[in-house]
Amino acid sequence: MPSTLLNSVSIGQHILNRLKELGIDTIFGVPSDFNMPLLDILEDDESLTWGNNANELNASYAADGYARVRGVGALITAFGVGELSAMNGIAGSYAERIPIIHIVGTPRTSYRNTNAIIHHTLGNGDYNVFYKMASMISCASTNITVSNAVSEIDRVISTAVISKRPVYIGIPCDLVHALVQVPIQSPLCLVPAKSPTKPLSVAYNLIIREIRSAKHPVILADAGVIRLHLESETNAFIERSGFPTYVAPMGRGGVNAGLVNYRGVYCGILSLDGIQQELEHTDLLIELGPVKSDGNTGNFTSALDGVKTISLYSSSTVIDYADYTGVCMHELLPMLTEGLPTVKKTFDLGPLIKPAAINHDSEDITCNYLWNKVEDYIKPNSIVVTETGSSGFAAFNAPHFKEATYINQILWASIGYSVPAALGASMAARNRQVYLFVGDGSFQLTAQEISVFIRQGLTPVIFLLNNDGYVTEKLINGPHRDYNNFQMWEYSRALTFFGGSLATNKAKNPAEIGLQVQVKTRKAFESAMETVNQEPGKIHFLELVMPQFDAPRELFILTKSAY
Amino acid sequence: MPSTLLNSVSIGQHILNRLKELGIDTIFGVPSDFNMPLLDILEDDESLTWGNNANELNASYAADGYARVRGVGALITAFGVGELSAMNGIAGSYAERIPIIHIVGTPRTSYRNTNAIIHHTLGNGDYNVFYKMASMISCASTNITVSNAVSEIDRVISTAVISKRPVYIGIPCDLVHALVQVPIQSPLCLVPAKSPTKPLSVAYNLIIREIRSAKHPVILADAGVIRLHLESETNAFIERSGFPTYVAPMGRGGVNAGLVNYRGVYCGILSLDGIQQELEHTDLLIELGPVKSDGNTGNFTSALDGVKTISLYSSSTVIDYADYTGVCMHELLPMLTEGLPTVKKTFDLGPLIKPAAINHDSEDITCNYLWNKVEDYIKPNSIVVTETGSSGFAAFNAPHFKEATYINQILWASIGYSVPAALGASMAARNRQVYLFVGDGSFQLTAQEISVFIRQGLTPVIFLLNNDGYVTEKLINGPHRDYNNFQMWEYSRALTFFGGSLATNKAKNPAEIGLQVQVKTRKAFESAMETVNQEPGKIHFLELVMPQFDAPRELFILTKSAY
Repeated sequence: MPSTLLNSVSIGQHILNRLKELGIDTIFGVPSDFNMPLLDILEDDESLTWGNNANELNASYAADGYARVRGVGALITAFGVGELSAMNGIAGSYAERIPIIHIVGTPRTSYRNTNAIIHHTLGNGDYNVFYKMASMISCASTNITVSNAVSEIDRVISTAVISKRPVYIGIPCDLVHALVQVPIQSPLCLVPAKSPTKPLSVAYNLIIREIRSAKHPVILADAGVIRLHLESETNAFIERSGFPTYVAPMGRGGVNAGLVNYRGVYCGILSLDGIQQELEHTDLLIELGPVKSDGNTGNFTSALDGVKTISLYSSSTVIDYADYTGVCMHELLPMLTEGLPTVKKTFDLGPLIKPAAINHDSEDITCNYLWNKVEDYIKPNSIVVTETGSSGFAAFNAPHFKEATYINQILWASIGYSVPAALGASMAARNRQVYLFVGDGSFQLTAQEISVFIRQGLTPVIFLLNNDGYVTEKLINGPHRDYNNFQMWEYSRALTFFGGSLATNKAKNPAEIGLQVQVKTRKAFESAMETVNQEPGKIHFLELVMPQFDAPRELFILTKSAY
Repeated sequence: MPSTLLNSVSIGQHILNRLKELGIDTIFGVPSDFNMPLLDILEDDESLTWGNNANELNASYAADGYARVRGVGALITAFGVGELSAMNGIAGSYAERIPIIHIVGTPRTSYRNTNAIIHHTLGNGDYNVFYKMASMISCASTNITVSNAVSEIDRVISTAVISKRPVYIGIPCDLVHALVQVPIQSPLCLVPAKSPTKPLSVAYNLIIREIRSAKHPVILADAGVIRLHLESETNAFIERSGFPTYVAPMGRGGVNAGLVNYRGVYCGILSLDGIQQELEHTDLLIELGPVKSDGNTGNFTSALDGVKTISLYSSSTVIDYADYTGVCMHELLPMLTEGLPTVKKTFDLGPLIKPAAINHDSEDITCNYLWNKVEDYIKPNSIVVTETGSSGFAAFNAPHFKEATYINQILWASIGYSVPAALGASMAARNRQVYLFVGDGSFQLTAQEISVFIRQGLTPVIFLLNNDGYVTEKLINGPHRDYNNFQMWEYSRALTFFGGSLATNKAKNPAEIGLQVQVKTRKAFESAMETVNQEPGKIHFLELVMPQFDAPRELFILTKSAY
């Protein structure tokens, strides 16, 4: 009986084995006396790379960016100081439904058992307080002991993958090398919940009936498609149905924009002119994995309240306000594709609506110019990371980059996210080109991660959009307030300052430095991009000097309407 | 009746008025759509300065550093993203007993009331989760409404000051300008708890009796002296008693080191050779505000278990293991000074024990050299900020800098703390010279705060101790591990990179850049320090290149004994 064959393995190695089983090859974090025993095992394991981030917040963002490419991410921090620094990032992964395994190196068991007043504690003997805090932003959490290690590690890691949320594993540093007996043939159980049979059948029949009777059904694909990795199922449904299809901002990249019935991005009043009228004309809205947040809906400006709506979620389905609890999109969606009427409806929709063309009345690098022009240079199958703020809003309706993966934290919206997230994405896909668009304000929060790009040999193209201040905030409140300004940096020297030209103490394969330049005109931008594309395999950093109050159309509309 | 006279004032202004009443003139933080209405009031108030930090973790550290100089500090962050980023810093203030008013700008009330899915929420309609997390590292917390504002603001702020811990005030952005009626003559009630009369009297008599019968009583002054601002009461007690007096590492700066009976720093096996024997010879140990953490006791290596011990705390007194609950140091200590025997005991203690002199067998800047030599240049009445790691451990036994205030996070021990803490201290005391000693590893976590020094016109002397890696960790585990190394930066260009030479978009009075230099030899260091002292009123940055495995004596002893 193979299930009785046991393998004696250290708890630390077992955790790392489980992560490798998930396809994880890079673990982010910061070293500490409480996690170094685990890092020893990690470093000795040739199939794993240590992210070695500049701080823990950056590590949590990096793990999130990695997970958006690979499906799951992991980081290792230290009890108290490290784990708390990561909390903003972990909460963001919770909100945006990104599975993250957060492993926290905790003090040795004897300290915990005696409530010893050691460093990284609150000085009151309470060893559970951080665990309790973390549990509020985790879908499962555990403190490992020798006796619970095998079952708890599996339970918690599986829950992360199935529920698409962060989990927390506290591992005392003295137990990392403790041996446990793990069944040899016992892969993680990662099977998602199954829909209850009857409600699935009822919902299916009802939806097919609605589809048959609808005159103008439309599809709105959203974040859930990407989070549940249902891109091909979604594209099949779109293709088979022929229904006009839109994506919400959080759904960008989840749908093949080359399909004939793909129509563009819908986000209420932030949609391109005409899109809103086009979509809201529908009599049956089929939402796939919707997230109805302010940022994803043009600040709740959809005019779809009167439209019959079907919403498919990870573990429920809502049909015209009736909730079919437990009916899962991953099962229902392929069934619907199969059950669609064999004769496709046809729709007369007119030409695709495109963003406004470049306004040529200036030599300035404006948002209108940048987001139109940059399309010429972006390679297919790239990863495009944008920041909450000017670049994130511009990305809503920017021309679709071919086969691109989009990373943007639209719900959680924590500024500073993009730089480490781009690092994580770069580690996750060394064979794809990563483009990072970050504003000067956001850059300052997490800028030190640039040095980790260099050390890890990563070669993104980084666009620093320098509009001299927090322009998103200036448009919301206080355009000339001091608090919306900050010290200007020599951004275009970032690669040099963060060590690109220095001895790289033992970095095995540091990044080669490409272009680092401050660009003020369109001509200079185009010339720089030629160089960038002539020199692949290097890290490039372009500081784009933009007019101080220039912003994408979406941001102007939003701030005028909502604030 | 003056108490019935009411002043109509906005909730935001009332909060700021209360902070000003505490002597706060600088509030740290990062702007956000949820806190900008409050920042408008702040910016219009000429008696307040906005810290405008590069990120929220840095803001929390800065508020902590400010509070260590001024007695209390404050920061303003945003719901979710901002407040969570600050949690490590706030928890550190909780552990180390630093009163911090953490004001969090929260979403408008209508969103909360409808559980709207907006940015910076977890997407699940839960508006209380961050408040609950924060409450675990706060001594009081509140979410402001119009009806509770007046009472809750006062309750929470007073509790911070009295309890010496952080507090949390959530203020919805739409209520900042709401008017409330505040009694005109109603200052905050900041009176600490009073000791119960009988236990105070019993404890007093018992201690006086113990003192009279002791042959070798000694005093060990610790963190509590500084946190409760009892420095003068402590010095009076030391002076009147004549007892040999020592300070714990967390008590450095709390005692006048010029007193004849001041003997030095005691921290178990990390004490200077001879100090441990000298103190542990005692038959009555009088501890003032002790913190018995690993870092403050040489990893619990005091050999004082058999010695009769009297411990005075903020709100209890322990005499030979008997706890007199509620008997407060601030009342008991002056009584003891009064009640001491009029005839001073004399003690034959021999000469003061001093750190090992400079070893002249090298031109390298070693810790032994640096911490002896730098004394020659440090101005009296300075603020000396050191980091968890090499500089922090070196500071335990470094020569006493005259009238210096020491800032070092010995209990919480979060690396990266020192740079923003030095910023906060500099804002708190523009008339005092701040010296910051930070290692290369720690610097990378929070380095961007250098730009805030420049923008705020602050002029510290910054020593970047570059030993090419995490040397403290290397001595604990994995001296040649990759995880203990990271990308080298061009540290000595930090002032330039972070904008020291650039247009400083509307900074009123940016810092003038002084020396920024990489220093590799003792001669070069001494020459640089001459320049630094010839150019006061500028910000100076010295990168000191040190041998990779050089560390202070204390760190070698600790890591050999404890790990």
